[in-house]
Amino acid sequence: MKFLVVGVGALGSTYLAFLTRAGHEAVGLLKKGRTLERIRVEGIWGEFEVKVKTLDDINRLDFEPELIILTVKSHDTEQALEGIKPLMGSKALLMIAQNGYGNYERAVKVFGEGRVILSRVIFGARLLNWGHVKITVCGDDVVIGDPEGKVREDFLTELSKTFSTAGIPTRHEREVYKYLWDKILYNCALNPLGALLEATYGQLARNPHTRELMDRILEEAFEVIKAHGIPTFWSHVEEYRKHFYERLIPPTSEHYPSMLEDLKRGRTEIDALNGALLELASQKGINLPTNEFIVRLIKAKELLNQP
Amino acid sequence: MKFLVVGVGALGSTYLAFLTRAGHEAVGLLKKGRTLERIRVEGIWGEFEVKVKTLDDINRLDFEPELIILTVKSHDTEQALEGIKPLMGSKALLMIAQNGYGNYERAVKVFGEGRVILSRVIFGARLLNWGHVKITVCGDDVVIGDPEGKVREDFLTELSKTFSTAGIPTRHEREVYKYLWDKILYNCALNPLGALLEATYGQLARNPHTRELMDRILEEAFEVIKAHGIPTFWSHVEEYRKHFYERLIPPTSEHYPSMLEDLKRGRTEIDALNGALLELASQKGINLPTNEFIVRLIKAKELLNQP
Repeated sequence: MKFLVVGVGALGSTYLAFLTRAGHEAVGLLKKGRTLERIRVEGIWGEFEVKVKTLDDINRLDFEPELIILTVKSHDTEQALEGIKPLMGSKALLMIAQNGYGNYERAVKVFGEGRVILSRVIFGARLLNWGHVKITVCGDDVVIGDPEGKVREDFLTELSKTFSTAGIPTRHEREVYKYLWDKILYNCALNPLGALLEATYGQLARNPHTRELMDRILEEAFEVIKAHGIPTFWSHVEEYRKHFYERLIPPTSEHYPSMLEDLKRGRTEIDALNGALLELASQKGINLPTNEFIVRLIKAKELLNQP
Repeated sequence: MKFLVVGVGALGSTYLAFLTRAGHEAVGLLKKGRTLERIRVEGIWGEFEVKVKTLDDINRLDFEPELIILTVKSHDTEQALEGIKPLMGSKALLMIAQNGYGNYERAVKVFGEGRVILSRVIFGARLLNWGHVKITVCGDDVVIGDPEGKVREDFLTELSKTFSTAGIPTRHEREVYKYLWDKILYNCALNPLGALLEATYGQLARNPHTRELMDRILEEAFEVIKAHGIPTFWSHVEEYRKHFYERLIPPTSEHYPSMLEDLKRGRTEIDALNGALLELASQKGINLPTNEFIVRLIKAKELLNQP
């Protein structure tokens, strides 16, 4: 298959390296002026190094991709969508492989229904250096699907097999949107507190004070979910809480959120996580005091850490 | 005059060194097993080194102090008051030279009205090493007084002169309790946020997110002040805000709160600051969401940092 990977950070490097190794035609789209020739992969999915193709100008793309994989940070989504507009006239589908709420919704507005695939990525990849990525943990298969049900199911099944065969375990699920919200909840509860306090997920869960705050973050998130009728696997916050503390945290208890590193660099995805909850809440006239506080603290620290 | 200085941290070392140098009989009461022979002072009030007297057992005190100066951290007040009970039968007065709310109130309960002097200390002292203190900043004279008006005024005036002559600028003010609350408000707004975000007072004031949070902390504090009829110089939070941003912060804008160092060691005075606001609020059935959040975050970080 033919892929264009937009954004070559930790996640983009992973897709580019694994797809190239599997013999697919894959090109990474870099920021203007950047270059990258090889990617080295290490971690739980094995070690290898592969020569990769990259471009820093989409107009020099010399083939028509079947799938564009968008891996940029949420705060760069708008700009990245703008950058791939030259491909809107093609038959390429767009796969959103990003954290948080709002990326998929924005992509559908630009590319239109039936052309956007949503994914829930829950493996951990860390960019050790430019072109050097480590796969640190895998919570579950990548789940892909089309929340609108307009992308052909056989294509989605085929695509899952392609990724899995290339080494990135993936499955197709019609309920992908529920999987995404599962992860949004997880990230909203853990990431900003872990980043602010420099604590692991396990430490946050064991500490009675952060546990109380995470409970409130989740309660407030469920107010938003109810008010907007967002589909989830959980009929009540208590159900999710149980799942969260008993199932999700234990296997990742030693991990720090990637937001910790982002925060040190002065830019996080808070607007696609707790910030998105605030935005959705304000549309319904709901107050989320705990989430608001946490967003303010993260934004305060972002400003302090900006170079 | 004859002094017993209880607690020989940054503040206690300062009093012990300056009073000893001025020729007063001053003894420092150390924790069991500790020893200290000399104190070196540096910073804005000059440099000197002085041989000091210390004890680690109050029963070995061989003179009757006229004034006991309590300088321990707020979380050690209870224990320190217990420790000086052998002096309750003497004529010694007790001076509270601590941060926050609750220390004076507790001391009056133990020592009784007419025997406790309150002070508002607003110079900065930092313990560089054991026995080595640096005076970093001085916001105003130390203010001393008796909120109950039962300690003889000529004694308070005399005591102020004694301290000032020894090198610690001090004045007597009947409204000392208002001065104390002035500083409590200042500390509640700046210390926990500065400690959590590792930010200076100036950075906190310039950052729109922390400024918003500090405004809310102060608004909530004024709810408590009103509900309890606590005397202050300010009839409304807006008046205090103006004073805070325009008068108090500019001269200390480069400073980090000492709570930052305390937090790294896993123990802060949060219970005598924002925690005290919560306690006072709960007595009146008032909710202080911003202060509660900040207290939880500080306590979470204390636990994470405890050895």
